[in-house]
Amino acid sequence: MNGNGQSASENKRKVCVVLVDRANYGRLKPVLRAIQQRPELELQIVAAGTMVLERFGQPVKIVKADGFHVDGEIYIEVEGSTPATMAKSVGFAMVEFASEFRRLDPDIVLLIGDRYEALAAAVSAAYMNLCIVHIQGGEVSGSIDESARHAISKFAHYHFPSTSRSADYLIRMGERPSTILGTGCPSSDIARQLNGSPLLAETINSTGSGVPVDISQQFLLAIFHPTTTSYGGELQQMNELLAALNMSPMQTILLWPNIDAGADHISKAIRVFRENVAPNWLRTITNLTPEDYLKVLSRAACAIGNSSSFVRDASYFGTPVVLTGDRQEGRETAAHVTQVPLQREEIAAAIRKQLERGRYRPSTLYGDGWASDRIADQLVRLSPYRQKRLHYIYDTDDVVSAIGPDSAKNVQGKSKKEYRTAVG
Amino acid sequence: MNGNGQSASENKRKVCVVLVDRANYGRLKPVLRAIQQRPELELQIVAAGTMVLERFGQPVKIVKADGFHVDGEIYIEVEGSTPATMAKSVGFAMVEFASEFRRLDPDIVLLIGDRYEALAAAVSAAYMNLCIVHIQGGEVSGSIDESARHAISKFAHYHFPSTSRSADYLIRMGERPSTILGTGCPSSDIARQLNGSPLLAETINSTGSGVPVDISQQFLLAIFHPTTTSYGGELQQMNELLAALNMSPMQTILLWPNIDAGADHISKAIRVFRENVAPNWLRTITNLTPEDYLKVLSRAACAIGNSSSFVRDASYFGTPVVLTGDRQEGRETAAHVTQVPLQREEIAAAIRKQLERGRYRPSTLYGDGWASDRIADQLVRLSPYRQKRLHYIYDTDDVVSAIGPDSAKNVQGKSKKEYRTAVG
Amino acid sequence: MNGNGQSASENKRKVCVVLVDRANYGRLKPVLRAIQQRPELELQIVAAGTMVLERFGQPVKIVKADGFHVDGEIYIEVEGSTPATMAKSVGFAMVEFASEFRRLDPDIVLLIGDRYEALAAAVSAAYMNLCIVHIQGGEVSGSIDESARHAISKFAHYHFPSTSRSADYLIRMGERPSTILGTGCPSSDIARQLNGSPLLAETINSTGSGVPVDISQQFLLAIFHPTTTSYGGELQQMNELLAALNMSPMQTILLWPNIDAGADHISKAIRVFRENVAPNWLRTITNLTPEDYLKVLSRAACAIGNSSSFVRDASYFGTPVVLTGDRQEGRETAAHVTQVPLQREEIAAAIRKQLERGRYRPSTLYGDGWASDRIADQLVRLSPYRQKRLHYIYDTDDVVSAIGPDSAKNVQGKSKKEYRTAVG
Amino acid sequence: MNGNGQSASENKRKVCVVLVDRANYGRLKPVLRAIQQRPELELQIVAAGTMVLERFGQPVKIVKADGFHVDGEIYIEVEGSTPATMAKSVGFAMVEFASEFRRLDPDIVLLIGDRYEALAAAVSAAYMNLCIVHIQGGEVSGSIDESARHAISKFAHYHFPSTSRSADYLIRMGERPSTILGTGCPSSDIARQLNGSPLLAETINSTGSGVPVDISQQFLLAIFHPTTTSYGGELQQMNELLAALNMSPMQTILLWPNIDAGADHISKAIRVFRENVAPNWLRTITNLTPEDYLKVLSRAACAIGNSSSFVRDASYFGTPVVLTGDRQEGRETAAHVTQVPLQREEIAAAIRKQLERGRYRPSTLYGDGWASDRIADQLVRLSPYRQKRLHYIYDTDDVVSAIGPDSAKNVQGKSKKEYRTAVG
Repeated sequence: MNGNGQSASENKRKVCVVLVDRANYGRLKPVLRAIQQRPELELQIVAAGTMVLERFGQPVKIVKADGFHVDGEIYIEVEGSTPATMAKSVGFAMVEFASEFRRLDPDIVLLIGDRYEALAAAVSAAYMNLCIVHIQGGEVSGSIDESARHAISKFAHYHFPSTSRSADYLIRMGERPSTILGTGCPSSDIARQLNGSPLLAETINSTGSGVPVDISQQFLLAIFHPTTTSYGGELQQMNELLAALNMSPMQTILLWPNIDAGADHISKAIRVFRENVAPNWLRTITNLTPEDYLKVLSRAACAIGNSSSFVRDASYFGTPVVLTGDRQEGRETAAHVTQVPLQREEIAAAIRKQLERGRYRPSTLYGDGWASDRIADQLVRLSPYRQKRLHYIYDTDDVVSAIGPDSAKNVQGKSKKEYRTAVG
Repeated sequence: MNGNGQSASENKRKVCVVLVDRANYGRLKPVLRAIQQRPELELQIVAAGTMVLERFGQPVKIVKADGFHVDGEIYIEVEGSTPATMAKSVGFAMVEFASEFRRLDPDIVLLIGDRYEALAAAVSAAYMNLCIVHIQGGEVSGSIDESARHAISKFAHYHFPSTSRSADYLIRMGERPSTILGTGCPSSDIARQLNGSPLLAETINSTGSGVPVDISQQFLLAIFHPTTTSYGGELQQMNELLAALNMSPMQTILLWPNIDAGADHISKAIRVFRENVAPNWLRTITNLTPEDYLKVLSRAACAIGNSSSFVRDASYFGTPVVLTGDRQEGRETAAHVTQVPLQREEIAAAIRKQLERGRYRPSTLYGDGWASDRIADQLVRLSPYRQKRLHYIYDTDDVVSAIGPDSAKNVQGKSKKEYRTAVG
Repeated sequence: MNGNGQSASENKRKVCVVLVDRANYGRLKPVLRAIQQRPELELQIVAAGTMVLERFGQPVKIVKADGFHVDGEIYIEVEGSTPATMAKSVGFAMVEFASEFRRLDPDIVLLIGDRYEALAAAVSAAYMNLCIVHIQGGEVSGSIDESARHAISKFAHYHFPSTSRSADYLIRMGERPSTILGTGCPSSDIARQLNGSPLLAETINSTGSGVPVDISQQFLLAIFHPTTTSYGGELQQMNELLAALNMSPMQTILLWPNIDAGADHISKAIRVFRENVAPNWLRTITNLTPEDYLKVLSRAACAIGNSSSFVRDASYFGTPVVLTGDRQEGRETAAHVTQVPLQREEIAAAIRKQLERGRYRPSTLYGDGWASDRIADQLVRLSPYRQKRLHYIYDTDDVVSAIGPDSAKNVQGKSKKEYRTAVG
Repeated sequence: MNGNGQSASENKRKVCVVLVDRANYGRLKPVLRAIQQRPELELQIVAAGTMVLERFGQPVKIVKADGFHVDGEIYIEVEGSTPATMAKSVGFAMVEFASEFRRLDPDIVLLIGDRYEALAAAVSAAYMNLCIVHIQGGEVSGSIDESARHAISKFAHYHFPSTSRSADYLIRMGERPSTILGTGCPSSDIARQLNGSPLLAETINSTGSGVPVDISQQFLLAIFHPTTTSYGGELQQMNELLAALNMSPMQTILLWPNIDAGADHISKAIRVFRENVAPNWLRTITNLTPEDYLKVLSRAACAIGNSSSFVRDASYFGTPVVLTGDRQEGRETAAHVTQVPLQREEIAAAIRKQLERGRYRPSTLYGDGWASDRIADQLVRLSPYRQKRLHYIYDTDDVVSAIGPDSAKNVQGKSKKEYRTAVG
């Protein structure tokens, strides 16, 4: 028996899952379970980024409390939260991921999302010739995450996008159609399982600080992360958001921001606001389990800010959302999302309107609640390979028109067959 | 006057050009000159990777000897030439590039190619919110460079691909058409200027070791770099190539490999071959100026191996090429290239055939000899911006069909206009 | 004129001063001024460690506000505050210091104290063949700082210890007597200049959080840093200290801990204590200017905790001190210090006793208030050299007795003369 | 059974031995064997530095071929061989050692010598609160190694110096006498065991390049490493040494230099010399097993250069040595060493004189051939502790005279007892 409760075997395919923040774990938890249940697979877990930081409540503890064995915990953040330290953190992360991958020697590295830590893991894995499977590729958003996501796709050998549009985009980007393993975000699986289970008051009031929340009454949920590509204006932006919330106060759960460049400014705005305004409607929280977070999201009367979960997970619940700022710009949204400029009056008005409107009909845009099993099955069945190539060159007509019939022959030689053998 | 001979000015646009190996400089030299000649631009040069290593003859010395001021020299290679040290080198490079970019504070970072050092520079620049212009995107090849190249494109804000097919591929990959600044590889500019200028015997015989080459007679040129995605078989591969050359010996100039994982094995194969066979037809060379290299390439009776310059630069000269191994697999080629499996008999046969066939008609597939001025002009005219987005979302029909008319409206909001303002 | 208000000159000796935390700056400020006033010297400042972190109030801003030009700001902390991340931070710091030293090319690197950041600067400088002058060597304390301090001495070419005992210890450790440039801690200079200048209430009450302090009444000052060599017990230790303060409450200014491994646990203890106990006697502060800090220290009725400034700077003022924990164990103390085990009753009793006893007679154990000028003069006069050697071998009798007269001759050859020429 | 042939047990004391170059292994091999033979100990081996580099023949292969299990192999060199890259390598090494120590969780880290890799291991281990045992402390030499050696001693908790003088120096430096575990260099154990065993011609002639050596005739051994503190003059220095050897040629085995800053210049000098002079008396070798190296050293008619083994190991054999340059300046030597300035005539004259003089009487200055067992016994018996303190403070009279009786009491409090409990 190895650490993750599976009988050890030489023949098992080792799948190394990289978790870089609480949201990652929130989405991948059902996938971890599904991998554990496949006798052909051996689960490895590497926790990195804010997962291991006390400042973020060490979410890795939740992973362990849930019974998973964590094979590696790595610290990769160069403190500073500036663009330069963010760049250095990516670099430092590559050094550390390379150490872990060398030690764990996985057959497959499973990554999710678009965080810089995931990019670092992807680049390390790619230069170490490891086969990469990526979840959540093909989406469109703002921030540097937009570029990182597509770069990860370019290193990934197989894809499990969340939506049909994402799958379509990946193929248009030159990924081979047969490497798209399926669609759906695994967080929808948790959402499905949670349906109807109660949210306890103490879940919220036993952690964090500020006023207790009466969950029998309406409450708001707010999260605001920095948008790295507009580094510098975060303090002012957060002030605007807090002012909006302060205009027609309703009890509100505010989660602290992630660790991106600019996060220190947002935290500062929150601390100053608490100190100066002493709001009797605000509770700030650092960390929740994935299930508790989703319960809060599903029960919130309205979610305000720029978390990707407001677009993705909230759609399954039909929770009204006021999306603001550039961070999720371009992301595919269901009907529950209203997008407004980052101005206090506009945000406040949008919140009022969403509260009047009430809950939306659930959407399966980001998953039908059965993604994890599909992913685990594919992890068993896929053929790992190393050498990717832009798929356009296998579209014969294109190759011929561009470079003439003789060269096309070269392009389609031995390697094409090899490649096809591997990816079907 | 700054170090690069330009009058200093607050208003100048600072263009930081990253050079990571001798081939980079060989291609970018005319671009550096063209930037110097634009009064609107200020040239910054950062030399990294093998450019500064004694083991590679410190090609940065040639840059300085040519009269350029080098603003930063960084050492980024973690010694070892294994996949893990290669991954760590990418990470370490990001740390070092971030230091340089922070200090030099450029408006634009200009990158070329697909090397891991260039990828590191791209990621650092992107997380530091710097505008990136990339030359040679959209091509297809083997090795990990294939993935790195497309990832760099995903971080780059503007592109200057070498061929029409590359430009087309970039657009298909979701890059906004208006961000394609033009086409053509600037190495064609040097090739054009060199046309007819003589190659001196001492250029070759005053450096390196082995037998002198009689340049009045036919000679071969051989280069073999490791293909990282098939790490482990290099020694055997190089033995095969050397055996092929030894089958019907003709005087041969062999350049040492680059620094990729596996290069140590190739170097070892060469050293052992020299020791055991004592070939009377072989001259090994570490380093040539870009011009001298192109002269050798243009004069070679046949070029054998897997250097990308055999596909790219040789096309302008019509030099016969025997391409072998997977490294350039998928790359667009003109008629002068014959591709064969890495087996001694096949290679030897292909060399014989190419020597019988003789020189090919020059091709402008990879540039017409006037790319540098086009690039410099665009560097003056482009509008730097930060936030990229996959261009597909601006194709209204697509958005509508995928996510319905309501959401499409959100997607196309404010940011589309902003984006369009920036990139035209 | 360069950034630090001095006329530029080729002939000036460049002195690079490394500042790694607010305490460093507090002590070195008069030295920086004295360097500026020497026409033979050019001042360079590199700020690192907590100096540049927002979490610590970015003390580098105070340096700039005081009119100094900061030549380099480097981020070196790998977040985590564990022993492993602390080790990695030292390593990462060396990488970053090497970049700065290469760029600034100083003649002398001036370091103070025993922090890991200073150790990193010392090692980088030493391997780069730079001449190192070290302030505060030869002292004895607890924590890993004890080992780091002596290791720094082993890399330093010249020394300016704070006390006679320290000077004596350095010589006993094998440092050449003529490399001891003088004694006295420069923070005594600030203390001397401050004497009698008033402390303003708003200095304390306009920053930090908690209850306002009435400075016309008695108040306490508390600081507690982790002792890395007993990593793991910090939370419990801080709880004990807070409990002691809570036993006979008096208004108290508590500064947050530094960044050493374990600091997160101390911060957590403080936050939980504030949350649970809501003490009406506590004000927490992140950052003060050096002068304001010394005013607070000089005015405090008693200082409690384990800050080295309680031993060093408080001696000049005669402020009663209750020292607890192992961090300062072994440090030379004047009469004002009472040392007690880290138990709430013992600490509380010691505070009561010190309050009854009242202020002590000032001591010049750690400096007479005129150290800065002596340091600056020596920086002008010293001869930089590279090669250190344990001084014992120049004690002829010892060499002869150990290895015989013939070998002794070898030992004393050419290099002895060279060495003597350099260091007098 | 674990990898090193010992039965696994919870109660075993884990000793992590760090090997950073072939010389390390040459000296520690009998210690590794002795640790394996103690049932109370569990052997862990981390190989770093040139041990794992192909350029240095990957000496780690010899360790494995000898039947040891290597628990970690780390790559730490930032390529460049400049002072700045050397500083960065030390930093990078700390990052990597911290990862290994965290994973292996040893009770004791066993280090030897004064290399920068050993310093890095010492600093990482110290900040991770690991107990450090150091072999070869207290010696005196040139180069930056001199400072590094004493700094390592300042981090080490226990010492096993090679000579009585070294032991004496360590105590004078403030190390507690009871932490000196014994004396003698373990390489003397190998020397003792080798005595009389034959050197085979093929040992030398089956590796390296150049002319074969006729070992039935007299031959010379030459090694020249860079002296980092005089970085920049290596090429000229090596030219001088080669010229000296060329003055009255005798067949010579030359080993390539180590990896210190400046080594590239020495290698270049050798390559150019070989190319230009084509000496018919020179064989260059990269790597030998420890035993073979000692056999060559013991059989050489004279050893020329600046390797520390010429001072240390050669003394046991009585091999005549011509020591030159500053690298070993100050090192304790037996009668077999003649030291001369680095000038060709002086070196050539000294070689002639040593050849005339012939072999010396063996000396046990650096060990009696039984050190390994003493070390292993001590590793079983010592009490690991964390907090070091300069021992001077436990010399009561001194403390009293310096700081008065009251403070002395503080100094000698609880911790003194603890400390004494630990170290006896």
